[in-house]
Amino acid sequence: ETIAKVIDGKSVAKHIKEEISTEITRMKEAIGVIPGLAVVLVGDRKDSATYVRNKKKACDDVGIKSYEIHLPEDSTEQEVLKYISEFNDDPSVHGILVQLPLPRHMNEENILSAVSIEKDVDGFHPLNIGRLAMRGREPMFVPCTPKGCIVLLYRYGVTIKGKRAVVIGRSNIVGMPAALLLQREDATVTIVHSRTKNPEEIVRQADIVISAAGQPNMVRGSWIKPGAVIIDVGINPVDDPESPRGYRLVGDVCYEEACQVASAITPVPGGVGPMTIAMLLSNTLSSAKRAHNFE
Amino acid sequence: ETIAKVIDGKSVAKHIKEEISTEITRMKEAIGVIPGLAVVLVGDRKDSATYVRNKKKACDDVGIKSYEIHLPEDSTEQEVLKYISEFNDDPSVHGILVQLPLPRHMNEENILSAVSIEKDVDGFHPLNIGRLAMRGREPMFVPCTPKGCIVLLYRYGVTIKGKRAVVIGRSNIVGMPAALLLQREDATVTIVHSRTKNPEEIVRQADIVISAAGQPNMVRGSWIKPGAVIIDVGINPVDDPESPRGYRLVGDVCYEEACQVASAITPVPGGVGPMTIAMLLSNTLSSAKRAHNFE
Ligand SMILES: NC(=O)C1=CN([C@@H]2O[C@H](COP(=O)(O)OP(=O)(O)OC[C@H]3O[C@@H](n4cnc5c(N)ncnc54)[C@H](OP(=O)(O)O)[C@@H]3O)[C@@H](O)[C@H]2O)C=CC1
Ligand SMILES: NC(=O)C1=CN([C@@H]2O[C@H](COP(=O)(O)OP(=O)(O)OC[C@H]3O[C@@H](n4cnc5c(N)ncnc54)[C@H](OP(=O)(O)O)[C@@H]3O)[C@@H](O)[C@H]2O)C=CC1
Repeated sequence: ETIAKVIDGKSVAKHIKEEISTEITRMKEAIGVIPGLAVVLVGDRKDSATYVRNKKKACDDVGIKSYEIHLPEDSTEQEVLKYISEFNDDPSVHGILVQLPLPRHMNEENILSAVSIEKDVDGFHPLNIGRLAMRGREPMFVPCTPKGCIVLLYRYGVTIKGKRAVVIGRSNIVGMPAALLLQREDATVTIVHSRTKNPEEIVRQADIVISAAGQPNMVRGSWIKPGAVIIDVGINPVDDPESPRGYRLVGDVCYEEACQVASAITPVPGGVGPMTIAMLLSNTLSSAKRAHNFE
Repeated sequence: ETIAKVIDGKSVAKHIKEEISTEITRMKEAIGVIPGLAVVLVGDRKDSATYVRNKKKACDDVGIKSYEIHLPEDSTEQEVLKYISEFNDDPSVHGILVQLPLPRHMNEENILSAVSIEKDVDGFHPLNIGRLAMRGREPMFVPCTPKGCIVLLYRYGVTIKGKRAVVIGRSNIVGMPAALLLQREDATVTIVHSRTKNPEEIVRQADIVISAAGQPNMVRGSWIKPGAVIIDVGINPVDDPESPRGYRLVGDVCYEEACQVASAITPVPGGVGPMTIAMLLSNTLSSAKRAHNFE
């Protein structure tokens, strides 16, 4: 019985952050510019606050200056747009990130579209997604989580071209752009979603699986083709009385079973999660370099 | 042995054109507005000239006013942009179409992006494609050929939701947007392209096949799942000494073979081709209605 290689996202992310840190020092010394990332947080969701805190800490670690605006839940769309517009105009800000989800009374489309495409480090602007989908076009930024998945495949030497790939999930922020990226790399891609019949049969044909369904332990060992590479994006809380917090986080893939069948797999936590933040830092650095024509 | 039902695009397109014509009369009588379509043709490609002529004739048939600019092969990008900008500003023009391919010395991306998104009746603007790809967003216009494929499925009562669909080809104008549309209709979609290994195995799983590869008779009867529905977008010239022009047009699908296996199939010509033009007229009418808030 083979045991899958563990794709160590935490270690890859650490390595990438070191590279970013070195680049930032080099840029600062050469042209005196420090990359800046602005985060707009609206409301009091605990998980969102945690994500924002983690992003801020990651910025500190590598030398990106972070700006944060925290608005109350009952703010108006207008107020959010005002801050975005200020950040758009501020030359010391190279990336702007609106933490999702926004309160229900706000129009996410309007707000995300207000972020200048040059500073849209999340890559969620529809113009950016359009470029990602089109042949012969280049997106300004590749969305962070899907980019993290592809970088993990690269760093572990997984060939994508010509391979069958299945993406589970089609959200704007993970599944759909992940599928577009795999297709750009010449995989043959199938997207599985909640209306898909017999997902197990389809997943079983894949050499590469990226799962972003948000369903704990949905992908069983029997769904996996022997030797497939599994990237598990899911971060799902499940009750666990043994854990100090009363729950623990698991992926979409039944890890123990998958380890017996796959050739390589990302753990949860410690797989895609740390890569997402590393890619955000990387996009922010790229944006600063582009703004100042620094290579 | 079953014989596939023929999906008669010519007849459906005729019917749709009659509906459009009636709507145009109603709008003209109610608010005095006539929809206008501007076509920009650069260079002397015979096939492009034919397409433009057919579009102009179709406009005449339904009562759309057509404007045409024909520029020489050696025009500059600037000149093309100038005409596009004039059409953007002209309130009697509701749709602008740049006939592709453009001469090699022009940047297609720049030119297509210059068309105002409100008049981009081809739906090729990357912002429009982004909206097509994203959940919860609506494109201004759905690209004509893929829209024609979906309308044929509708009119023949083919259920898309939950079905396995394979799109062969991933071009910006046909394959990719066709896949996005099928996915919006909740099919489970796989895109096959030139780097796909064993395309026949993948195609054989599909309940619905849309083929836009530009490869004459590539899809054989043995590639098709019994009872599948086949939409053949390909228009490929093959030598034919018997034909007065020395060639005839065939699709990507080996029609005689497919007829023995599929439950329904579009012929070439007379399938998707006429639908493309009908959708262009439909998009132009929608644009005029939207511009004048006419329902
Ligand atoms: N590692 C990281 O950094 C990140 C992790 N995540 C995690 O990834 C997961 C997905 O996130 P996100 O994309 O935002 O989630 P969404 O809820 O927006 O999307 C989930 C997608 O999965 C599909 N889906 C749901 N249930 C099933 C099922 N039973 N079978 C097949 N498909 C199904 C849905 O289909 P349909 O479209 O039909 O509804 C939908 O497309 C979550 O666990 C989230 O926590 C998210 C972002 C970053
Ligand atoms: N009915 C109508 O109104 C219209 C008809 N057409 C016709 O549709 C066809 C496609 O047009 P268009 O999309 O512009 O063509 P493109 O040449 O732009 O794209 C062809 C696509 O097919 C893929 N492909 C090529 N060969 C193979 C193969 N052997 N196996 C699998 N995939 C293959 C290519 O893959 P890769 O990306 O890897 O190169 C590419 O994605 C043509 O015949 C064209 O005449 C086009 C527009 C309108």
